Amino acid sequence: MCAGGWALNPFKRHRVMIHSFIQALRDLLGESHVLLGTDCAGFETDWRKRYQGKALAVALPHSTEQVAAIVALCAQYEVSIVPQGGHTGLVGGGTPNATGQQLVLNLTRLNRIRSIDPENLCITAEAGCILQTVQDAARAAGLHFPLSLAAEGSCTIGGNLATNAGGTQVLRFGNARDLCLGLEVVTPQGEIVQALKALRKDNTGYDLRHLYIGSEGTLGIITAATLKLSPQPAATVCALALCTSMQQCVDLLHFSRQNLHSTLTGFEVMNHTARRLVQQHFAQIAQPFRLSTQPQSDDWAVLIELSDEESQAHAEARLEALLSSALDRNLIDDAVLASSMAQVKNLWHLRESIPLAQAVEGLNIKHDIALPISQIAAFVEQMKVEIEQHCPGARLVTFGHLGDGNLHYNVQAPVGVAAAEFLTQFEPRINRLVYDAVTQRQGTISAEHGIGQLKRQELAQYANPVALSVMKKIKAALDPQGIMNPGRVLTND
Amino acid sequence: MCAGGWALNPFKRHRVMIHSFIQALRDLLGESHVLLGTDCAGFETDWRKRYQGKALAVALPHSTEQVAAIVALCAQYEVSIVPQGGHTGLVGGGTPNATGQQLVLNLTRLNRIRSIDPENLCITAEAGCILQTVQDAARAAGLHFPLSLAAEGSCTIGGNLATNAGGTQVLRFGNARDLCLGLEVVTPQGEIVQALKALRKDNTGYDLRHLYIGSEGTLGIITAATLKLSPQPAATVCALALCTSMQQCVDLLHFSRQNLHSTLTGFEVMNHTARRLVQQHFAQIAQPFRLSTQPQSDDWAVLIELSDEESQAHAEARLEALLSSALDRNLIDDAVLASSMAQVKNLWHLRESIPLAQAVEGLNIKHDIALPISQIAAFVEQMKVEIEQHCPGARLVTFGHLGDGNLHYNVQAPVGVAAAEFLTQFEPRINRLVYDAVTQRQGTISAEHGIGQLKRQELAQYANPVALSVMKKIKAALDPQGIMNPGRVLTND
Repeated sequence: MCAGGWALNPFKRHRVMIHSFIQALRDLLGESHVLLGTDCAGFETDWRKRYQGKALAVALPHSTEQVAAIVALCAQYEVSIVPQGGHTGLVGGGTPNATGQQLVLNLTRLNRIRSIDPENLCITAEAGCILQTVQDAARAAGLHFPLSLAAEGSCTIGGNLATNAGGTQVLRFGNARDLCLGLEVVTPQGEIVQALKALRKDNTGYDLRHLYIGSEGTLGIITAATLKLSPQPAATVCALALCTSMQQCVDLLHFSRQNLHSTLTGFEVMNHTARRLVQQHFAQIAQPFRLSTQPQSDDWAVLIELSDEESQAHAEARLEALLSSALDRNLIDDAVLASSMAQVKNLWHLRESIPLAQAVEGLNIKHDIALPISQIAAFVEQMKVEIEQHCPGARLVTFGHLGDGNLHYNVQAPVGVAAAEFLTQFEPRINRLVYDAVTQRQGTISAEHGIGQLKRQELAQYANPVALSVMKKIKAALDPQGIMNPGRVLTND
Repeated sequence: MCAGGWALNPFKRHRVMIHSFIQALRDLLGESHVLLGTDCAGFETDWRKRYQGKALAVALPHSTEQVAAIVALCAQYEVSIVPQGGHTGLVGGGTPNATGQQLVLNLTRLNRIRSIDPENLCITAEAGCILQTVQDAARAAGLHFPLSLAAEGSCTIGGNLATNAGGTQVLRFGNARDLCLGLEVVTPQGEIVQALKALRKDNTGYDLRHLYIGSEGTLGIITAATLKLSPQPAATVCALALCTSMQQCVDLLHFSRQNLHSTLTGFEVMNHTARRLVQQHFAQIAQPFRLSTQPQSDDWAVLIELSDEESQAHAEARLEALLSSALDRNLIDDAVLASSMAQVKNLWHLRESIPLAQAVEGLNIKHDIALPISQIAAFVEQMKVEIEQHCPGARLVTFGHLGDGNLHYNVQAPVGVAAAEFLTQFEPRINRLVYDAVTQRQGTISAEHGIGQLKRQELAQYANPVALSVMKKIKAALDPQGIMNPGRVLTND
């Protein structure tokens, strides 16, 4: 109430509240760690520049206690929070909405390696640690942290866990969740779940760790994690093989797993169109196999990585034996073994340049899907026919982690058609074709990128309705005020 | 209301309700699949005979739809449900309480292998499948399902997942949860979460799978699961090594992991007292190392298992090389390599006979604990001193899965002291000593057996209070009527 008994008008009241909230935040963190106005710009747009938001402020805490205090303050003032790590996500999960009412809680100052325990093969890192920093710390202790993905130089371990990141080593080591032993989490009430366990076996109640991992900041904020390490392999060798169909790639995968077991650490595929795009835009990258001038050529290059426990010579001998048997069995048409570190790097460079070549070629329709491996060849054949029917000439750029059943199944405009126009006309229809086929074949519409803002409507549409209602009950129970990253993962209905 | 407007007295009303509930259950399942009275006896006592309950009835459904209908009926009549598989649990999680008011929902008739997909390396089995049946089905398809534990001939896959079973292969393949790709679950409202996914990557919302796994039937009933399979190893070889202290065992583990990586599939320890008990009660089991006549001898036998991808000869050469290096480095005092399948079996038989020898010797105080591996040697030393102080002469029977940091840390009465008297006098005090030390060293009071009825008070006492309150919120949100296995895992406060 104002002086004289008049009620403050709601708009003014809101401004007073916000002012008081910001002041409390500054008292907590110091003025330099609460960004306002144009200082927030670097935190408001996602990496792909697909989402442009407006933050109320950006808070930069440097301890778990500060994170807890900020969240308690937000609960008190009913301010919603967008947790943010390296901000490299692909689905808009860490970008504020356009209202200017959401607090961005950026964790990059919470970036200490707290401890490393070689005897127990684990490391405890704060959420804001860059993934590469964790990899380097493990290596310095003579050990190996296997999570590896394109953004590793800037993504954070907190973001990796919040989104359950995948990457290139999942075949052998699993997703981010499989590498996590324990978590420290701030709840939506500003309390701290202290569960930085470093145990391989622990059956004491519900597994909250796996619930927080992959929840994209909607149930709480991960502030630190204890992560599994592995011994370093003695040698890592690579080869590139050529298959004439996706079914042949699948057969080669099966044969490789049967022979190499857990020493098979990478199995990536790239279709002909993907490699042609790289040749067109990055001619300096060596292409071990000559590319056909036939644009419809359906050959596939397979990158096989073997990590050996014995020696370089043993590794090379095993990979050579595999390729030789595969040739004898007509599982491959041709193969090259990388005989130097430079050649290994070149093979991975070829693989990793596909999304960049696509970006140079123009906007395209992206899908991050996974299927049971036994369904992949039929899916690829089905889509080829259906997409050609609906959009003649569309170029299918298909690549990804076949070892995990995960394809980046991207669709580029036909040669000569403007990308923007192509997207406007075809994106919803092609998404529908792809997601319907994926769902019919028991696959997933999001393999490793998560849901964020981008796919929440699709999740609502394609998920099992009972599962979705269980998720909503959990969200309502743990975050009844709805302040944790609202509008991400689940729709607000 | 009765005829004439009189209210039925509450006791009579309850009887009428129960009668009507049982009739509805019989209509649903057929009379022969609803057991009553003395027919329930085989389902009311746990395997260790520690818990003796009284069931309202035992329901034996044979389809997921029947399970859902039973649960819906229970929700309607507010009858609480105790889900039960092979009933081999060690913590009283599947035994009804003594009130005669709980329905035992036994899943052993729900026991089909629904499908097996060798290309995708997975199998889908119903909850009531015996673990060994799943192992056999995998083997028949030329594949390997690695979950392995003493009760595998009678425990069910549903129970394994509900309790997140561990066993002897966790070092390489993880716990039961790590072998599960997808689940089918009946909710406390009788709805079906249909999520039998067969995917290695899937980021579509909260991971309900890991929430249900290990929740011991308190959040829903697992009715089927899709499980990961692996290629069969080319050869499995074993050795027994002798160490003179737990620290030496830990050093040997570290050395073995560095050398064998993922081919190290078993690493079990047995202290001197454990092996002496086996010798005393099962003299026919060969003991590769001579046992000292000194009862206080502190040597440890380590069972090392290597699963090789190449050949028997390669496996033997690697294990021999490991043992030879370990001898050179004074990591072991002696070693024997099992040179036949009979010798391999004998080594495992020695290991698995310890709990049986303990049972013959008399009741004892059992602990199923795990610690960070770097804490184990100090824990063992600390306990030796403390337990001797509090209970002079108590015999420490220590064995288990050192590779996972998991010890079965059991305490037997001093020679000549009656077991029952020993338990009455010392069990609470020794439990307290062990659990306090475990907790101070960041360990767990339940590594692989779960909480059930046995440890719910300890969980309430030792768990992080914020984590516990999050668990209770989840329980209240998903099972607001509290009908799913009440009084298990969480206390009713």
